[in-house]
Amino acid sequence: MDLLKNRRTVRAYENLPIDEKMMLEIIEEATRTSTTGNMQLYSVIISTSDEDKKALAPLHFNQQCVTQAAALLTVCADYNRFTKWCEYRNAQPGYDNFLSFITAAIDALLFAQSLSLAAEERGLGICYLGTVTYNAQAFIDYFNLPRLVVPVAAITVGYPATEPPQPDRLPTEAVVHQEKYHDYSREQIDALYRMKEDLAENKRFVSENNKETLAQVFTDVRYKKNDNELFSNRYLDAIRKQGFMPTKNNEE
Amino acid sequence: MDLLKNRRTVRAYENLPIDEKMMLEIIEEATRTSTTGNMQLYSVIISTSDEDKKALAPLHFNQQCVTQAAALLTVCADYNRFTKWCEYRNAQPGYDNFLSFITAAIDALLFAQSLSLAAEERGLGICYLGTVTYNAQAFIDYFNLPRLVVPVAAITVGYPATEPPQPDRLPTEAVVHQEKYHDYSREQIDALYRMKEDLAENKRFVSENNKETLAQVFTDVRYKKNDNELFSNRYLDAIRKQGFMPTKNNEE
Repeated sequence: MDLLKNRRTVRAYENLPIDEKMMLEIIEEATRTSTTGNMQLYSVIISTSDEDKKALAPLHFNQQCVTQAAALLTVCADYNRFTKWCEYRNAQPGYDNFLSFITAAIDALLFAQSLSLAAEERGLGICYLGTVTYNAQAFIDYFNLPRLVVPVAAITVGYPATEPPQPDRLPTEAVVHQEKYHDYSREQIDALYRMKEDLAENKRFVSENNKETLAQVFTDVRYKKNDNELFSNRYLDAIRKQGFMPTKNNEE
Repeated sequence: MDLLKNRRTVRAYENLPIDEKMMLEIIEEATRTSTTGNMQLYSVIISTSDEDKKALAPLHFNQQCVTQAAALLTVCADYNRFTKWCEYRNAQPGYDNFLSFITAAIDALLFAQSLSLAAEERGLGICYLGTVTYNAQAFIDYFNLPRLVVPVAAITVGYPATEPPQPDRLPTEAVVHQEKYHDYSREQIDALYRMKEDLAENKRFVSENNKETLAQVFTDVRYKKNDNELFSNRYLDAIRKQGFMPTKNNEE
């Protein structure tokens, strides 16, 4: 699939809008993605106005791509629509639990990736923003997300201003296990990460951050334990507040 | 993207193996998918032997596609490989928390969907199995998944024996929100679900199950509250046992 082989994340965009009809076609195509029991447990919120993008940028830690992109798509795990349908049809929905959150999150993320590829096939560039999980409650408030709706992916979309280089990836065998999971020996880790560690760009990254190893740049600078723990609690709180974990905590 | 427009889930397969090299190419293409901080927080376990498929079938509630498919792919959220790398590089990993599970699950699910489309582009058919989350602990045991590895998707892959009809989908506007989430009125729910409820196949489904409404088939037969709550607790337990939620419970 050349589309996959040649893709790269795009963070800088031309100042060009995306045709509204094309955006809906992209989304329509993505709805062909597999979905649990054909329930389609996702929603996508489209933000295209400067006002929205400026308001949302700080929640995404002011990543430039948010204001520069033609559109910011926020993809949500959504059991609200389905639950409402059940309620209006004399059926007793039972989706206020963690499994239902995971089920809807799976639906939403598979949908998000189809949507991204359908956009890229049309010459658009995309970038996923992990910040959507860090600050989930702020997005819930901003978008007025009702109970049983939680954001799981945010994607900036626009016409690429540049063609960035393709980043490295681990050798394919790093992610493949035959029959059973074969845990990694130190020798295997050394071999699988050697190319990444030898890249000039990554060596510069280590020295710029005054670290000994590339791994330390991740643990001490980019994805720190304290931040992860803070955002863990916040995301769990958001999931709970949105009604997906009533049995763990009776505060609501 | 015609690949998306024309796709349908395939549950019946020809008795034909998948070329091993092609399978690895499919996976290699899928590794081009966006991944958090280029950490590639996923693994895929390939099961192709009759022995494995027979052993795994009951864990997937004996869905026929498991034994019939040429391959069963189990995609896992995986922070183990990255954590090991950190440990071998004098870096202190901080990924034993819920946010890290979600981050790895996002990586794994985006990867799974790229992999599925890359397989479909080659004429293969795929089917996602939600059972992988219901019985996560059994898969963890079967595959020997180490700490910080949790299955999030299972996909059967094989050459289609038939071309099943495309299932219905909600009108695209059902999943799209402009600027803010606009909650659904009863009238909107009626309009969005009318086509689905009017399908002969779904009407038969209602009468065969002796129900009043299609929604009741979901709430009372297919995705029941009691099952969801049972599987919620089990999946949370599995996530906790795999080390992704140390702060919620000190049993380990």
